[in-house]
Amino acid sequence: MEDCIEAVRWAGDAVEYLDQRRLPHDQIVRRAATVDELESAIASLAVRGAPCIGVFGAYGVALLRVSIDDDTAFAAAAERIRNARPTAVNLRWAVDRVLSSSDMLAEAQAIHDEQRRMDARIAAAGAELIGSGASILTHCNTGPIATGGQGTALGVIIAAARAGKRPHVFVDETRPLLQGARLTYYELAQAGVDATLIADSAAAFVMQRNGVDLVIVGADRICRNGDTANKVGTYALAIAAAHHGVPFYVAAPRSTFDLSLNDGSEIRIEERPADEITSISGSRIAPEGARAYNPAFDVTPGHLITAFITEYGLLRPPYWESLGDLELRPNLSAVSF
Amino acid sequence: MEDCIEAVRWAGDAVEYLDQRRLPHDQIVRRAATVDELESAIASLAVRGAPCIGVFGAYGVALLRVSIDDDTAFAAAAERIRNARPTAVNLRWAVDRVLSSSDMLAEAQAIHDEQRRMDARIAAAGAELIGSGASILTHCNTGPIATGGQGTALGVIIAAARAGKRPHVFVDETRPLLQGARLTYYELAQAGVDATLIADSAAAFVMQRNGVDLVIVGADRICRNGDTANKVGTYALAIAAAHHGVPFYVAAPRSTFDLSLNDGSEIRIEERPADEITSISGSRIAPEGARAYNPAFDVTPGHLITAFITEYGLLRPPYWESLGDLELRPNLSAVSF
Repeated sequence: MEDCIEAVRWAGDAVEYLDQRRLPHDQIVRRAATVDELESAIASLAVRGAPCIGVFGAYGVALLRVSIDDDTAFAAAAERIRNARPTAVNLRWAVDRVLSSSDMLAEAQAIHDEQRRMDARIAAAGAELIGSGASILTHCNTGPIATGGQGTALGVIIAAARAGKRPHVFVDETRPLLQGARLTYYELAQAGVDATLIADSAAAFVMQRNGVDLVIVGADRICRNGDTANKVGTYALAIAAAHHGVPFYVAAPRSTFDLSLNDGSEIRIEERPADEITSISGSRIAPEGARAYNPAFDVTPGHLITAFITEYGLLRPPYWESLGDLELRPNLSAVSF
Repeated sequence: MEDCIEAVRWAGDAVEYLDQRRLPHDQIVRRAATVDELESAIASLAVRGAPCIGVFGAYGVALLRVSIDDDTAFAAAAERIRNARPTAVNLRWAVDRVLSSSDMLAEAQAIHDEQRRMDARIAAAGAELIGSGASILTHCNTGPIATGGQGTALGVIIAAARAGKRPHVFVDETRPLLQGARLTYYELAQAGVDATLIADSAAAFVMQRNGVDLVIVGADRICRNGDTANKVGTYALAIAAAHHGVPFYVAAPRSTFDLSLNDGSEIRIEERPADEITSISGSRIAPEGARAYNPAFDVTPGHLITAFITEYGLLRPPYWESLGDLELRPNLSAVSF
């Protein structure tokens, strides 16, 4: 996409990335060249969004292969990148793919290119779901800066806007890290899409009073039966959507489907530091010593999901069948667009 | 309650109040003596919590009667206090009660005394709902600093803790104003109750994975059919509770029931400034010019509420009957405790 924000870029002697923690106020591009810098960029959420982390990790491992001669040391470094975020299956998938290639840099670049083309196919597959003037609700961030392409859920919405459908988007602010307020609103504004920010807890009320035609979110990991790990709050949103009869869609590429997992009980949920809840933007909110529980993700049961929007089209229930068919589909690498 | 925080206090020539915007970090007691100061204390949320606003407004009007000789000017001032928050029915009720009394100060003090005794009765009525070691989820702030007494929903929980039931409480942080993180956690800690803070959007996931035995919240306004206006997010929580089969209780005094309203469609929802969403603690989150929708309250349909906890005991469905019986009950003033 010519007018997309560039989240990750190969710079020859480093991987450059947009520090997403500083958006929307500052657009700071940083360089990561060592395993510490690469791992920390992922772990600190400076680079975020499952597909974007995958692209970044792929370039990172290719870079380390050049800078670390010793095979054992390189393998240990690659393993650190691979595990920098426990829930993101794309990261492990991308790292493994690069590791098993004879030309690691070419492989990383191929992953990035495929990501861009795949996002375009997801957007095309989702287009039919959005009617003219649709009111759409979304959670967290799934746009260009999250994928390195044009985005998943937000890619669908932006494509609908470009097709002249004039959607309106309610954007959940997405506590604790406020990706909706900071990133999604920013991306929608950049794309000229009409948007309104709301507190996460107002989403159900907006469905009740304002009318929402559909919900579209992204995913971090999708199991064989459709159970979907995504940013905490997705599950609450899916329950509210079901309660109001609002269709609930998940947009994600093939690489987010982990068909080795039968259901959500097999997903380990990453718990993040308490101070993301007890403090906001560095200022303390809760009393000193306050205890907080901060799961980064939750798991939405497949039966609450109307359909998945993928580069292979819409996948509808029963998921045991439609997702099973994905097993026959190549995982990006062999796709000819 | 001897060990309760004092939220509002009559000081002879002013109404003193704890500035709740500064908690939990600073405990600042301020004085309001003019109609501007009184109105602003309510409108700015320095004084908050429906019953507490009622007590504050009652003292305020009694004070203005002494300082404003002219009857027309006094009536206009009282009307400003009466309308300082559009949704809080307690405020209008308390102001009207004081205005129709021959000794306004004595009437305001009676309202405050009755509030304290009423809270104690609500706590007693709710006690039977909480089992030993219960896991409870709550939203917003309903403790001593919200009512001027010992609290409604939090009063029930604190009473259970004092009865040795050792409850554990998941506290929704309650965006946008973070009353849960700032006030409820603080009050529970002061009362020695075991608590864990969570993002509002994590509540459904906590019900799914951690187990929640019951939800208790307060209310700002309750209609004849049980439809309940309360802090935004309450409705989402009620839907999630119903989805998980978790009982959902609303603790509120008689004065919060507005039996002149048939159902929630008659409740006007207060919309608060967008910058409560676009900024946090004074630092801007969303891009410049971002639009936000910020309803202060939402309406939970009565059919999602398991029972109301009142000073007259538990009220269960069908609400058209049980709430109708309240009409025969005096609205605080004539209650003999």
